[in-house]
Amino acid sequence: MQMTNPQQQQYDRGATIFSPDGRLFQVEYAKEAVKKGATALGLVYEEGVILAATRSTQHLRVRNPEKVFKVDDHIGIATSGLVADGRSLVDETRQEAQRYLMTYDEPIPMNVLSKFVADRCQHFTQYGGVRPFGVSTIAGGVKDGDAKVYQTDPSGTLNQWKAVAIGKGGSEATEHLEENWESGMDEDAAIKLAVNSLHEGEEDLDPKNIELAIVSMEDDFDVIPPEELEERGLGF
Amino acid sequence: MQMTNPQQQQYDRGATIFSPDGRLFQVEYAKEAVKKGATALGLVYEEGVILAATRSTQHLRVRNPEKVFKVDDHIGIATSGLVADGRSLVDETRQEAQRYLMTYDEPIPMNVLSKFVADRCQHFTQYGGVRPFGVSTIAGGVKDGDAKVYQTDPSGTLNQWKAVAIGKGGSEATEHLEENWESGMDEDAAIKLAVNSLHEGEEDLDPKNIELAIVSMEDDFDVIPPEELEERGLGF
Amino acid sequence: MQMTNPQQQQYDRGATIFSPDGRLFQVEYAKEAVKKGATALGLVYEEGVILAATRSTQHLRVRNPEKVFKVDDHIGIATSGLVADGRSLVDETRQEAQRYLMTYDEPIPMNVLSKFVADRCQHFTQYGGVRPFGVSTIAGGVKDGDAKVYQTDPSGTLNQWKAVAIGKGGSEATEHLEENWESGMDEDAAIKLAVNSLHEGEEDLDPKNIELAIVSMEDDFDVIPPEELEERGLGF
Amino acid sequence: MQMTNPQQQQYDRGATIFSPDGRLFQVEYAKEAVKKGATALGLVYEEGVILAATRSTQHLRVRNPEKVFKVDDHIGIATSGLVADGRSLVDETRQEAQRYLMTYDEPIPMNVLSKFVADRCQHFTQYGGVRPFGVSTIAGGVKDGDAKVYQTDPSGTLNQWKAVAIGKGGSEATEHLEENWESGMDEDAAIKLAVNSLHEGEEDLDPKNIELAIVSMEDDFDVIPPEELEERGLGF
Amino acid sequence: MQMTNPQQQQYDRGATIFSPDGRLFQVEYAKEAVKKGATALGLVYEEGVILAATRSTQHLRVRNPEKVFKVDDHIGIATSGLVADGRSLVDETRQEAQRYLMTYDEPIPMNVLSKFVADRCQHFTQYGGVRPFGVSTIAGGVKDGDAKVYQTDPSGTLNQWKAVAIGKGGSEATEHLEENWESGMDEDAAIKLAVNSLHEGEEDLDPKNIELAIVSMEDDFDVIPPEELEERGLGF
Amino acid sequence: MQMTNPQQQQYDRGATIFSPDGRLFQVEYAKEAVKKGATALGLVYEEGVILAATRSTQHLRVRNPEKVFKVDDHIGIATSGLVADGRSLVDETRQEAQRYLMTYDEPIPMNVLSKFVADRCQHFTQYGGVRPFGVSTIAGGVKDGDAKVYQTDPSGTLNQWKAVAIGKGGSEATEHLEENWESGMDEDAAIKLAVNSLHEGEEDLDPKNIELAIVSMEDDFDVIPPEELEERGLGF
Amino acid sequence: MQMTNPQQQQYDRGATIFSPDGRLFQVEYAKEAVKKGATALGLVYEEGVILAATRSTQHLRVRNPEKVFKVDDHIGIATSGLVADGRSLVDETRQEAQRYLMTYDEPIPMNVLSKFVADRCQHFTQYGGVRPFGVSTIAGGVKDGDAKVYQTDPSGTLNQWKAVAIGKGGSEATEHLEENWESGMDEDAAIKLAVNSLHEGEEDLDPKNIELAIVSMEDDFDVIPPEELEERGLGF
Repeated sequence: MQMTNPQQQQYDRGATIFSPDGRLFQVEYAKEAVKKGATALGLVYEEGVILAATRSTQHLRVRNPEKVFKVDDHIGIATSGLVADGRSLVDETRQEAQRYLMTYDEPIPMNVLSKFVADRCQHFTQYGGVRPFGVSTIAGGVKDGDAKVYQTDPSGTLNQWKAVAIGKGGSEATEHLEENWESGMDEDAAIKLAVNSLHEGEEDLDPKNIELAIVSMEDDFDVIPPEELEERGLGF
Repeated sequence: MQMTNPQQQQYDRGATIFSPDGRLFQVEYAKEAVKKGATALGLVYEEGVILAATRSTQHLRVRNPEKVFKVDDHIGIATSGLVADGRSLVDETRQEAQRYLMTYDEPIPMNVLSKFVADRCQHFTQYGGVRPFGVSTIAGGVKDGDAKVYQTDPSGTLNQWKAVAIGKGGSEATEHLEENWESGMDEDAAIKLAVNSLHEGEEDLDPKNIELAIVSMEDDFDVIPPEELEERGLGF
Repeated sequence: MQMTNPQQQQYDRGATIFSPDGRLFQVEYAKEAVKKGATALGLVYEEGVILAATRSTQHLRVRNPEKVFKVDDHIGIATSGLVADGRSLVDETRQEAQRYLMTYDEPIPMNVLSKFVADRCQHFTQYGGVRPFGVSTIAGGVKDGDAKVYQTDPSGTLNQWKAVAIGKGGSEATEHLEENWESGMDEDAAIKLAVNSLHEGEEDLDPKNIELAIVSMEDDFDVIPPEELEERGLGF
Repeated sequence: MQMTNPQQQQYDRGATIFSPDGRLFQVEYAKEAVKKGATALGLVYEEGVILAATRSTQHLRVRNPEKVFKVDDHIGIATSGLVADGRSLVDETRQEAQRYLMTYDEPIPMNVLSKFVADRCQHFTQYGGVRPFGVSTIAGGVKDGDAKVYQTDPSGTLNQWKAVAIGKGGSEATEHLEENWESGMDEDAAIKLAVNSLHEGEEDLDPKNIELAIVSMEDDFDVIPPEELEERGLGF
Repeated sequence: MQMTNPQQQQYDRGATIFSPDGRLFQVEYAKEAVKKGATALGLVYEEGVILAATRSTQHLRVRNPEKVFKVDDHIGIATSGLVADGRSLVDETRQEAQRYLMTYDEPIPMNVLSKFVADRCQHFTQYGGVRPFGVSTIAGGVKDGDAKVYQTDPSGTLNQWKAVAIGKGGSEATEHLEENWESGMDEDAAIKLAVNSLHEGEEDLDPKNIELAIVSMEDDFDVIPPEELEERGLGF
Repeated sequence: MQMTNPQQQQYDRGATIFSPDGRLFQVEYAKEAVKKGATALGLVYEEGVILAATRSTQHLRVRNPEKVFKVDDHIGIATSGLVADGRSLVDETRQEAQRYLMTYDEPIPMNVLSKFVADRCQHFTQYGGVRPFGVSTIAGGVKDGDAKVYQTDPSGTLNQWKAVAIGKGGSEATEHLEENWESGMDEDAAIKLAVNSLHEGEEDLDPKNIELAIVSMEDDFDVIPPEELEERGLGF
Repeated sequence: MQMTNPQQQQYDRGATIFSPDGRLFQVEYAKEAVKKGATALGLVYEEGVILAATRSTQHLRVRNPEKVFKVDDHIGIATSGLVADGRSLVDETRQEAQRYLMTYDEPIPMNVLSKFVADRCQHFTQYGGVRPFGVSTIAGGVKDGDAKVYQTDPSGTLNQWKAVAIGKGGSEATEHLEENWESGMDEDAAIKLAVNSLHEGEEDLDPKNIELAIVSMEDDFDVIPPEELEERGLGF
């Protein structure tokens, strides 16, 4: 277990306590949970967004959406960290998306949806009796010909990216994205970049352990199974 | 009692406190309660699902559903861990299944039901004033010719399996399932595998101490008493 | 006072805290309160159920139902542990029985009633701001020619028995029941067995200190005063 | 101040915490408050019930009902312990008696009323955020030619007696009652016994410091002032 | 600061915790606040009640009712202890008096009003999240030709007196009242006694620092300013 | 930081805990916040009330009402202590004044308004989950030809004065008021006295740093800017 | 981590606890979070208000409003500190602005809006179960030809300025503003001053990392992208 000094220990038991230098330790600890989570990423390409994440496989386990979720027809979310927290946060987001659709009779815009996710996370850092969400998210979607990727962390911080990765291989994968992402990539190039970036993040990654979805202007939310990646020659 | 170091002890009194390395100790302790529970398993076969669990017998105790519960006509749940928590969680799930039926006029789908169970567990790890459920569950059911098995743990993590086991003999039983489960098994082979897997998990298991139920496309939820297992030559 | 080691003491102040090995100490301590309570038992015989418990007598105290309570026409409950907790739990159960009758226009079935008692106990082990009930119960009843005995403990665990005993003499009394209970006993044999089992549990028991009730298909809930036991030659 | 060992001190700050041997220390401490209270008693005689208690007198203090309260026409309650708690509990009981009368159009039966008092006490030992009542009560009443005396303590335990005493002289007074109470005593004998029992409990008792009330089939609730006791030759 | 022993310190942080010998330390500490308050008294005379209290004067401070308050036409209250607590408690009492008048169309009887004050104090000693009132009160009033004085303390204890004093000079003033109060005193004698008793309680009392009010059958609630006391020759 | 002894430290963390000698430390600490606040004063003169306070100036800061607030046409409040607490308390008071006007169709009397402020402060010292207001107030107003000044502190104590000062220079300023205030002063004399008293409280006070308002029978609430003070020759 | 002395540590865990010298440590710690935030400023010029802040850039991150937000047509807010807290506080403010518009059918005045922000911050320092906002804000807006800038901090203190800066370079930037701000500056001079002041606050600032918005009487809320700053020759 990571060591902490005695001074730190006096301010790290509650999400609603500041340390003398203005830090929220419980939020920082929640980020540690994310650093242990599977690598996930999102990137924008010419016609849409790629969301991808690594997963572990176990014999007899049925492949199920676990890290990359469909939220609405043109929106998906990839999560990293405590998987149950991720699923719970995605569920709330789906409901928000439905509420928006019912109220305004049009799909929820990406910035509204991602702000909902971030605000929900922030709320759990300021009110007592709960803990922060131990999860970071990458939301991606298309609307009116525009593809966007947003990322949140347990503090509720929200950023928009062309391409970004989170989780245990997040920094290596992000580095690879920064070096190789280009404006105007086509779908195959984008998938290839996503797959390679995950591989950079987790060296011993088995191509079968990739969850990948395309949110595109043409195909809506579309899961690409590992076999298809192989067929299309897009695995590493 | 299992030893813990002093550093750990500062973060393990509440389900809503992260440790500096991002762990939720109370959830991990709840999993310990499951590791002490009776072995339980679920597996998919050609025409349905087998749910089974071991139990202790005591002279004069009446055999009662205790670890394998009927939830709806085509759905059952096996639990391992604190038995009272298991019963309470199953009850809530039954009510949810009824609510769904009332609202949509069709049986609750397996993935909706199992997500309900997992979300309920997750909720008890994030909000103060309660403790996590000290129980893991295996839900199995059939719908539209499709048989499915889902498993949850106290953190609210949810996985779908072809076959899986939990509880004190869970890892040995799972290993046995991994080695022997085959797609397309018939009912007798499936029951035989379930019984043998439990036996692998608990070596001194008395065949009389097996609770076993079939959820099949033909027979709905059907409990097979130990004697019938013996008659059908399916005990070990 | 029973000794506890320093490690244990860190996890035993709240019903909603797991210890590192997955135990709920407050629930275990509540069971200690039951182990100090008067012996109580329930057993099934040919035509009904016997519920019995020991009591202390004091000069000038009026004999009152104290450990064996009538819940509904054909249902009784014997309790052991904190007497005030027992009375409170029995009251809630009576109200539940009435609610059921009002709603469904038929008497509450034994399994529904006993699950109510167990769920109520479980609830007090999972939610903060309360303590577990310091009481175990044995519910007995007849319906449609069927006699049943259920037992709960402070954790909310629920078991059905042919015959079982709880409280300070509970293990000796249960042992005696296991050796001597037979299917198809008549009323006199059943009462005799109940009385002797209590005597096994508490060696210096005065026959006058026995509370005994019969819940039978013929007579509904019927209290047998110690004198009548003597008249009928059923005391020890 | 009474000494406690360090082990005990870890479990005695809250009414909702069990000690490792299943005790509720806060309830036991509340009973200590009763042991410091003025002696009070209740006893049944041929035609009714005597309730009596000692009080301190101070020059210029006006004699007011302080320990023996009228609850309804044929019911009274004597209390011992924290006087403000006693008054508060009696008030709630009076309201309950009125509610019963309004609802059923007949006076509240003694057992219903005394169970109300006991349940109220029990409730304050199981729910957080409050403390137990620091008071024991003796309720006495007549109905349909039947005279009854019930006693409660801070745990909510309830007993029916022919005669019983509580408070600082409670055990000596009870002993005196046990030796001298007889079935079928007339009013004068009963008052005489009550007065003498209080005197046994508090040796330096001044006859003027006795509060005594008769709840009889003839006279309803009737306070006997010390002077009248003297006139009737019933002081010691 | 008054010393406390380490044992005591473990039970004195909350109004809802009993010490091992059944004491409520927070209530006792609240009584200390009263012992530091200005002396106040109440006494009954032939035609009414005198309420009086000492106050400090400061240059430029305007004389305002501060310790002796009018509650209703024929009722007043004098307080001692934390002045803000006193004002708050008196306000609630005034509202209760108005509610009573509205509901029953007659003035609130003295015993009902004073029980309201005492119950309010008791309530704050039994429920968590608040502290006891740091104030004692003396309520005085006349109704139907009857003059009465009641006194409460922070525990909610309630007593009726012919004459009583509280606050820092309370015991000396009460002693003086006990020696000199007589039944049937006229107004001048009563005022004289009140003034002298306050002087006994606070030796360096300046006659100008006396708040005194008469609640009489003739004049309702009537404040007597220090100058008038002097004019009438009733100062010391 | 001011030193406290270990004994004191055990009773000073909550506004709802009495120390053994009956003190409320959190309230006393809140008064320390006032002692650090800017000096403020209020005084009555022939035709109204002067409210004044010192402020700090910083280059580029816009002069805004900060310590002397208008509450209603004829009422103002000056505060000292935590400025945000002051503003919040004044806002609640303004709303109360409006509610009164709406309900009774006449302006709120000064004693009702100032009791509202004081009660609000008291409330925050008796109920848990909040802290006392770190602010003292001086309310001044005119009604029916009568000018009044009231002062509150964090405990909720309320006093009426001819002239009074609070804050870091409060005692020196009050002393100066006591020596120089005279009944029947005209406006210029009153302003001059106010300005000089603030100067006594804060020796290095720059005349530009004075907030001063007149609440008079003629002009309602009227702020006098520093320049006008200078013009009228009323600065020091 | 910043060192604190042991005495301080006893009063710094809750926003609702005063230290012995009347400080609220949690609020002070929240201010530390602001001192680590990006530099932000606001200034008034002839025809409106400039709001500006620095930001970090990362490759692939999309430029998004992050520190300078539009609130209403003529009002903006710049924040410094925890970004999630800032976004959350700005959202509440936007809703308040909309409520005002709906209720009064005219835009919310700047002083009402900024008092809302400050009151919200103050509230989170006085009530338990939450933590203070870790954010300071600068609100700027125009109405009826009048331009105003208000600033709040975590305590809820509110000040109006001609020009002010906050965050890690806040004091240097404010100093630069104080030396160079002049009444009647035109837009270009104002932007130039804003840009230079940020540069004073953060020496290694890249001109591309400036967020700048104009709220002017002509153009409403208008974001000036870094490139336009360069084009207009207004970068440093």
